[in-house]
Amino acid sequence: MKINGQHYRTIWLALDGWRVVVIDQTRLPFRFETVTLGSAERAAEAIRAMVVRGAPLIGATAAYGVALAMREDAGDAALEAALAMLGATRPTAVNLRWALARMRRVLAPLEPAARAEAAYREAAAICDEDAALCRAIGEHGLPLIRAIAATKPAGEPVRILTHCNAGWIATVDWGTALAPIYLAHDAGIPLHVWVDETRPRNQGGALTAYELGAHGVPHAVIVDNAGGHLMQHGQVDMVIVGTDRTTASGDVANKIGTYLKALAARDNGVPFYVALPSPTIDWSMADGVREIPIEERAAREVTHVQGLTEAGEPGSLRVVAPGSPVANPGFDVTPARLVTGLITERGVCAASADGLAGLFPEFAKGAAA
Amino acid sequence: MKINGQHYRTIWLALDGWRVVVIDQTRLPFRFETVTLGSAERAAEAIRAMVVRGAPLIGATAAYGVALAMREDAGDAALEAALAMLGATRPTAVNLRWALARMRRVLAPLEPAARAEAAYREAAAICDEDAALCRAIGEHGLPLIRAIAATKPAGEPVRILTHCNAGWIATVDWGTALAPIYLAHDAGIPLHVWVDETRPRNQGGALTAYELGAHGVPHAVIVDNAGGHLMQHGQVDMVIVGTDRTTASGDVANKIGTYLKALAARDNGVPFYVALPSPTIDWSMADGVREIPIEERAAREVTHVQGLTEAGEPGSLRVVAPGSPVANPGFDVTPARLVTGLITERGVCAASADGLAGLFPEFAKGAAA
Repeated sequence: MKINGQHYRTIWLALDGWRVVVIDQTRLPFRFETVTLGSAERAAEAIRAMVVRGAPLIGATAAYGVALAMREDAGDAALEAALAMLGATRPTAVNLRWALARMRRVLAPLEPAARAEAAYREAAAICDEDAALCRAIGEHGLPLIRAIAATKPAGEPVRILTHCNAGWIATVDWGTALAPIYLAHDAGIPLHVWVDETRPRNQGGALTAYELGAHGVPHAVIVDNAGGHLMQHGQVDMVIVGTDRTTASGDVANKIGTYLKALAARDNGVPFYVALPSPTIDWSMADGVREIPIEERAAREVTHVQGLTEAGEPGSLRVVAPGSPVANPGFDVTPARLVTGLITERGVCAASADGLAGLFPEFAKGAAA
Repeated sequence: MKINGQHYRTIWLALDGWRVVVIDQTRLPFRFETVTLGSAERAAEAIRAMVVRGAPLIGATAAYGVALAMREDAGDAALEAALAMLGATRPTAVNLRWALARMRRVLAPLEPAARAEAAYREAAAICDEDAALCRAIGEHGLPLIRAIAATKPAGEPVRILTHCNAGWIATVDWGTALAPIYLAHDAGIPLHVWVDETRPRNQGGALTAYELGAHGVPHAVIVDNAGGHLMQHGQVDMVIVGTDRTTASGDVANKIGTYLKALAARDNGVPFYVALPSPTIDWSMADGVREIPIEERAAREVTHVQGLTEAGEPGSLRVVAPGSPVANPGFDVTPARLVTGLITERGVCAASADGLAGLFPEFAKGAAA
């Protein structure tokens, strides 16, 4: 997507044709800086330090990390060492494991002399495929936005609420929840995006607001408390969010607070859509609220807030009364009954076992009832 | 209520018998300091600078401000000047206007020589009446908590979620939503209070957490996004919140985000109570969502967060991407259909025109249908 009119992906090859450039996401939204990675170690460090974040982008960075390693030493031992080092950076990331397994499958059978070139080719393919998947989600979501626009007087914006960051900077390009929004904006449909701040880590107010602003999409940041009020007063036409895991029955785990917005959408007749690439569907689960494990995250995310000081430097502030304990569940589950539809790379379907099975018959076969 | 074992109100007379002492709420939750007010001008400044906050406490401080003025000059002109100066501090506060009108009604007919003593007496009466009103709310709410405790194994806490600060530091003593909680705690009922952070001003994480901690009530602070998840998982037995304005039909305006918690309570079968002194009932209104005007507050409350720096000093941080607009509605309206009951100084009633008319027949007569 665009930053100040220039097109970017989140990861690309440097002009030298072999080093890998990424946007330093630890500096966003206050500074736009890139980091050039010249070794597998540097790629691993970028993942570990969250210079890159978002499951698809982590996978892509790890794939390029393998390519950087092969350029130095393409022997079997070096390949395994690179895979192990990169795999240990974020142990729970599914895309990371998937991308590294794919690199091994392609590279291991090759002669060492052929591995570096093949690794670069495969990493590029992983990036292109992720961008294509996200763009397909966007293309399937676009008609939903266009249909709402058609009901409005010319020039009046479609008002879309989103929660957390499911944008292009979490992927290689386009994003998931934001892909339909970017396509609609680029197609000239007037939009206004309500961006939930998304405490405790403020990915909405920081990252979603940043990328929408940089691409030129009109938006406003609101605290997480405000969405229900806006819906009561007819200020929201639809909700689109991303997801970390979707059950075979259409229950959706996403950043904490998503469920509250789904309840408000239902109470006010506002359509509530979830955008997801099919790899995030967990075909083994049927009851999301009972079965999806919810991570309890660090207390400091609640007691302290990160941001920019008056002096323009990164800083943190304590916002909770000293001595008060906190609880910090990182995600919640929105039951399928509150979801109007799932926007996938193959099309839009009902949030139900039948809906998902219709689009993904090959996976749904052995799924939980 | 107690701070480290010592009983406090939010406002009291100094040992000299005439100056007025208040807790400096601009320093909470990080410092407990008091301010001694020796003139009406200082009282007005304390209200203006939010050294004191919360409608009942503002009214009480203004009443004592009149007493301080009468001590210096009890003539008619001085009385009117003091009333005007104090009335201009927070123009929209209903309790402020009510307290000043009451002081004028008592003082104006008196000889100047009798005014100072009468003013102190009346200010003290306003304080005592507010504390009694809040305590009565607590006594009527206590059986609701006791009934839940009776359904639990001995020692297992009643888990109560609250939003924003409707505690004793917003009143003279006891608070509104927190009054039943303090009475239950003092009665030995085990409690665990979930405290919503309450962005954008964080009154929950800062003030409610502070006062619960100081009184020794077990609690944990959560971000505003988390309450729905806790309710889905059976971690919340009841919700009690305060209100800024309640319609004659039982619709409740309260801090932004209250409506989202009411929706989650309904979706999970959790009782949702609103505690209110009857002066906050607006007998002229029937449809809260349509009729109650909602204040749009300053953008900086959303773009920046206040707190304590690592160096232990008060500070602020920008948390929203630079250049991104924000919206900041300060309150929302929870429709009566989502409210299990209203806890008033006269008892608990249904959130309905009939419920309120049953407890307050003298006001309900001319109310909106």
